[in-house]
Amino acid sequence: MRDLPYYSFKHRDYTIEGYSRGAVQTYWRIPEFNLGFDLGAQPWSFMGTPNWFVSHSHMDHLAALPQYVTRRRMMKMSPPTIYLPKEAKVPVEQLLFQWQRLDRGHLPCTLVPIEPDMEIAVSRNILVKTFLAKHTINAMSFVVYQVKTKLKPEYLCLTGEQIRDLRQSGVEITYEVRTPLVAYSGDTRLDILLQYPDFLSAQVLIAEMTFISLEHPLATIHKYGHSDLADFVSIKDEFKNEAIIASHFSTRYTGKQIENQVDKYLPGRLGGRLKLFI
Amino acid sequence: MRDLPYYSFKHRDYTIEGYSRGAVQTYWRIPEFNLGFDLGAQPWSFMGTPNWFVSHSHMDHLAALPQYVTRRRMMKMSPPTIYLPKEAKVPVEQLLFQWQRLDRGHLPCTLVPIEPDMEIAVSRNILVKTFLAKHTINAMSFVVYQVKTKLKPEYLCLTGEQIRDLRQSGVEITYEVRTPLVAYSGDTRLDILLQYPDFLSAQVLIAEMTFISLEHPLATIHKYGHSDLADFVSIKDEFKNEAIIASHFSTRYTGKQIENQVDKYLPGRLGGRLKLFI
Repeated sequence: MRDLPYYSFKHRDYTIEGYSRGAVQTYWRIPEFNLGFDLGAQPWSFMGTPNWFVSHSHMDHLAALPQYVTRRRMMKMSPPTIYLPKEAKVPVEQLLFQWQRLDRGHLPCTLVPIEPDMEIAVSRNILVKTFLAKHTINAMSFVVYQVKTKLKPEYLCLTGEQIRDLRQSGVEITYEVRTPLVAYSGDTRLDILLQYPDFLSAQVLIAEMTFISLEHPLATIHKYGHSDLADFVSIKDEFKNEAIIASHFSTRYTGKQIENQVDKYLPGRLGGRLKLFI
Repeated sequence: MRDLPYYSFKHRDYTIEGYSRGAVQTYWRIPEFNLGFDLGAQPWSFMGTPNWFVSHSHMDHLAALPQYVTRRRMMKMSPPTIYLPKEAKVPVEQLLFQWQRLDRGHLPCTLVPIEPDMEIAVSRNILVKTFLAKHTINAMSFVVYQVKTKLKPEYLCLTGEQIRDLRQSGVEITYEVRTPLVAYSGDTRLDILLQYPDFLSAQVLIAEMTFISLEHPLATIHKYGHSDLADFVSIKDEFKNEAIIASHFSTRYTGKQIENQVDKYLPGRLGGRLKLFI
């Protein structure tokens, strides 16, 4: 079947799949974590992922929500859970109601309103945290953490029996270790990266780079809640990420233009860590 | 830019562009005629076409309507005209209203309710006629005609001056010639082709072939308002079209399966006229 294209980037033991072009469509998922970001479009294979985080309600980030829900129902999959900015919940519910009239089918899903600074457990080991982005409408950025529970150092020398007894007596014998795996900027000014350190230390950062230091002044770009190649250059020594995916380029640029500008201002592409999903 | 794929089929002096897969997405256009059929998805380049005919309101034929309207506004193109089944007009209006809340932008367009047996002039030379399809919900099929005005034979020997005088005196000196150029079935049982002869004589027929004579009994396929390869076989001597595009195949089939079945039951593919857009 011919379908929407997307990049597939294997890193450690998970895969970043997706694509983004500013004002056109944005869709990402990490199948191993059972979650995705933004529903601007929906490749057929993406429907298998049951949890989706919507950064904001601009159409290029949300348009495919009804299709996603309908396809899962049609393929007899469980109703999905969609986390979305709280003010989007009612309009989306009403939108789905109109689609039920048009399509003559139910659209079963759970819409969960979210705000910044929430922690959402997607599974026992995977947690998503929400951060306030800087965009023209209320928007969020996300970090996916791996959560591991470890025995406190002072109990490491105990036997299994002693540990069980302690636990049963109500003593907290473990502590939680969170590792930021994947950070997703959504649409935003990039100064949030300095504000929220986990974005710069996550193993993989998916960031918007709408503009590439050509025609627009930075102040205008920032006013519209977007980022420029120059923003990446200004913090180029701060990235501790193992890989940085830049995407959401404006449609006014060709692939060649984007590559040339990046290589001019960031020669070596941050030691090979910067990937351009054009 | 990476975008939705589509076939491009040049025939005479026009081009059929599009793609369709059952329950996934259906989108066709003929750029030279300034019109398209169905808005199940919307390649970025398709937005330049200003008139769209929606066969029915199932989501895989209508999902991209809000994006199409928004993109034209964003690119400063004129508001499009969308012809759609009359019962879909109000739900689509309300859907667009919810999108205005979510996307914070106007969605300017003209929604024209249509019924079977209407004639719609898209331009001076291009006319679209609507036909009742046989589907599970109210659905339409379309034929695009070229309209030419010709001098009546009895006046062919007159001078320019005599013709002008006659016309000014109110005599109807011309007659209209309609040539069916492109017929589009939409989702339907294929017996409409025998019912509406222009579908079999149009230069190009775009027809749905959802099933390919494998697991399903014909009666079930017809009950659900769809067509099978067997329907094509049963009327194979009736096609007078110069080209027949079969598409809207079910996702359960691979390209190889479709080709093998067609070649088994229609060897030679109707003298090479049958094109499979898989």
